[in-house]
Amino acid sequence: MYKTSNLSSMFSPNSLQPRMLVNRFSCTLKNQSVRIGHCTKVPRNVNMEKLQHGYLFPEIERHELLHLKKYPNANLIDLGIGDTTEPLPTLVTSSMVDFVRGLSTAEGYKGYGPEQGEKALRKAIAHRVYKDLGIKPSEVFVSDGAQCDISRLQLLMGPNLKIAVQDPSFPAYIDSSVIIGHAGKFVDRIGKYENIEYMTCGPQTDFFPDLHRTSRSQLIFFCSPNNPTGHAATRKQLQQLVDFAKVNGSIIIYDSAYSAYITDGSPKSIFEIPGAKEVAIEVSSFSKFAGFTGVRLGWTVVPEELLYSNGFPVLQDFNRIVCTCFNGASSISQAGGLACLSPEGLKAVKSLIDYYMENARILVNALTSLGLTVYGGKNAPYVWVRFPGLKSWDVFGEILENTHIITVPGSGFGPGGEGYIRISAFGQRESIIEASERLKYLLY
Amino acid sequence: MYKTSNLSSMFSPNSLQPRMLVNRFSCTLKNQSVRIGHCTKVPRNVNMEKLQHGYLFPEIERHELLHLKKYPNANLIDLGIGDTTEPLPTLVTSSMVDFVRGLSTAEGYKGYGPEQGEKALRKAIAHRVYKDLGIKPSEVFVSDGAQCDISRLQLLMGPNLKIAVQDPSFPAYIDSSVIIGHAGKFVDRIGKYENIEYMTCGPQTDFFPDLHRTSRSQLIFFCSPNNPTGHAATRKQLQQLVDFAKVNGSIIIYDSAYSAYITDGSPKSIFEIPGAKEVAIEVSSFSKFAGFTGVRLGWTVVPEELLYSNGFPVLQDFNRIVCTCFNGASSISQAGGLACLSPEGLKAVKSLIDYYMENARILVNALTSLGLTVYGGKNAPYVWVRFPGLKSWDVFGEILENTHIITVPGSGFGPGGEGYIRISAFGQRESIIEASERLKYLLY
Repeated sequence: MYKTSNLSSMFSPNSLQPRMLVNRFSCTLKNQSVRIGHCTKVPRNVNMEKLQHGYLFPEIERHELLHLKKYPNANLIDLGIGDTTEPLPTLVTSSMVDFVRGLSTAEGYKGYGPEQGEKALRKAIAHRVYKDLGIKPSEVFVSDGAQCDISRLQLLMGPNLKIAVQDPSFPAYIDSSVIIGHAGKFVDRIGKYENIEYMTCGPQTDFFPDLHRTSRSQLIFFCSPNNPTGHAATRKQLQQLVDFAKVNGSIIIYDSAYSAYITDGSPKSIFEIPGAKEVAIEVSSFSKFAGFTGVRLGWTVVPEELLYSNGFPVLQDFNRIVCTCFNGASSISQAGGLACLSPEGLKAVKSLIDYYMENARILVNALTSLGLTVYGGKNAPYVWVRFPGLKSWDVFGEILENTHIITVPGSGFGPGGEGYIRISAFGQRESIIEASERLKYLLY
Repeated sequence: MYKTSNLSSMFSPNSLQPRMLVNRFSCTLKNQSVRIGHCTKVPRNVNMEKLQHGYLFPEIERHELLHLKKYPNANLIDLGIGDTTEPLPTLVTSSMVDFVRGLSTAEGYKGYGPEQGEKALRKAIAHRVYKDLGIKPSEVFVSDGAQCDISRLQLLMGPNLKIAVQDPSFPAYIDSSVIIGHAGKFVDRIGKYENIEYMTCGPQTDFFPDLHRTSRSQLIFFCSPNNPTGHAATRKQLQQLVDFAKVNGSIIIYDSAYSAYITDGSPKSIFEIPGAKEVAIEVSSFSKFAGFTGVRLGWTVVPEELLYSNGFPVLQDFNRIVCTCFNGASSISQAGGLACLSPEGLKAVKSLIDYYMENARILVNALTSLGLTVYGGKNAPYVWVRFPGLKSWDVFGEILENTHIITVPGSGFGPGGEGYIRISAFGQRESIIEASERLKYLLY
């Protein structure tokens, strides 16, 4: 019915607002007395009502469609959504093939697995991803992806908490917070929800919040390397964050989905920071680490040391959430994840990461050669380009019109992203080179 | 760390209550002044606090472990958890193998798919499962299983609604309702939560609620064929339910996870009932239909016609939930699901269902030959056996002690299940025959 392009898949919150339905029912909404058929007596969830239509991604899609209408033969390059493009290592697919083949045999068939994930995979994550950080397999919960676990963490914590997010940041933190009921109303004038602390993370403060000006909140969403800025928080910054959380009694929900892209020695996990186990949960994913965007696999670490104000361990409640609201990740995806974490698997997925990071270098070089101020691309597959004094959407339009390249306007990640463009380094090499040439030609 | 048996996997809510942790932290909880390490200032979610430990499944597990300690050589037969045991059809695994192989090639690699599911699968579900019921592909949301979607539906609807559930029923409806915040406190004396309408479904009323005595609620969870009773609601009963919902302005959340097991012509979908599209959402699954308990795949149908009290279409908000709180089912599982819905696939999965239903017949025959009152087993893979005047747990213990067979005490599904035992017909034929013999020997 309504078009679903790849573009809309990752930045999911607002994608696929079914336009046809909006039209069809708009009369109903504008004039409450007009009903099409029976109305139930169930009120619409006030939290859902608060959600902004957030037209960013459908809007990008709309621009894309209009552009293709205008230039039907355009060789469009999509550096918008950060979706992996390179084939999985054979070693990983072979493991999954063997597992799937087994499912049609009496010996290999497996039904329900543990909701928390297969023992071997939990162990591999604890010992191979976290190495000597002392994470126990029982603290690792295997999931179908970081975004899904962010919502389960919202269910865990319940409504009406004061939350803080980096600005700019991936929209799912704020949208899931609105859905569970943390947010006040949206204030159009400033582009922010009430009762949410937007921690500005710009170049003035090395993309880290000014914690002296940050008020106390109960949950702090923090993503490093950050999406969209690509900044990996330094050890010193993360120590400040952990200390801040400890003093304020906050819980950090730390998203390390891009940590495998860190090259400069910055921490790859919040648990590298002393004291973090008492204040942080870490959410992570095989999506960007191993190209599992479609395969769906992730994990969350809830340390035993993390306690609610009454001393009750958060881990116990999260276990209950996972058992009640989830039924485990696909056993096939888990077989693939386990293969990724073997010594050979780790080498193979590392070469995928190197590939995307070489893409990022090509883009960064092209853009800096033009004298632009470019962030990211060093510890993350996102390049964050500044266009001082310009509006993100104008720059986006300009680039699309003149180069047939889709990017993402920075303002879509929050008011702190205004004046920036995010360019994704996920893509096939020839597209990246071609895109760099086109950008050079346009912006020179 | 803590044992994870298959037994605990499906009836997940309370499974895996990590006993070691309970012990370790119990001092903290009994005496609030004792702290082990730092406590955050985040209060424990009051909804999580309300949840009963619900010791049913860990308790069954505990009994199982004690039993194996007492009889280390016992040939235990597990007819407790309803987990599929038979290999998947080769046709289905071949499809998944081809898809997985493709993932390691440039042509076959796929990243993010649409959050709502692959177009072809949505179409196949709409047209092949629902045939001429007029379900549109755009109304079908592919998921990673019915249990997961029940929680997403709770997020959709938001807290503080009056809900009704069948008593007895699968525990996830109530537990997810408590987590989102519909329930009042648990009243030990009657074994019920306040603010939840328990609709008694016993043999006196042909396992259907007495709707004249049922007060108005906003959400009605209804599972047919019911787990645990195995009763498939008749067309007349479902028409009554739809009419009741319409008059009261309620939304029915209809779980048809076992509908493929219906043999007597009872409706396989709520949408067979005229008017249902204006009052019902249907949640379903490939788990029992095609043996996908570990593969993870399901779907939810939200009809366009379903409107909130203000006329806003529920479908639009659910689309937003799926995009924000989920990122699509595994592309591999979806490839398998599509194969199941091909004409040959449907034949192949039908033979799996026939196999389990033959198991059910064997169990029903054995038990009725003993003069027991036996329900279920005709339209569902569950046999529901009445032991008048006895306590479910006592019967469970008696059977385990004397036959080494694990069953489920009916009271675990709500107070309405007291005096019953649920026996699962999932299992290999020889185990089912052996179990029948043992039961005959014990109960004769």
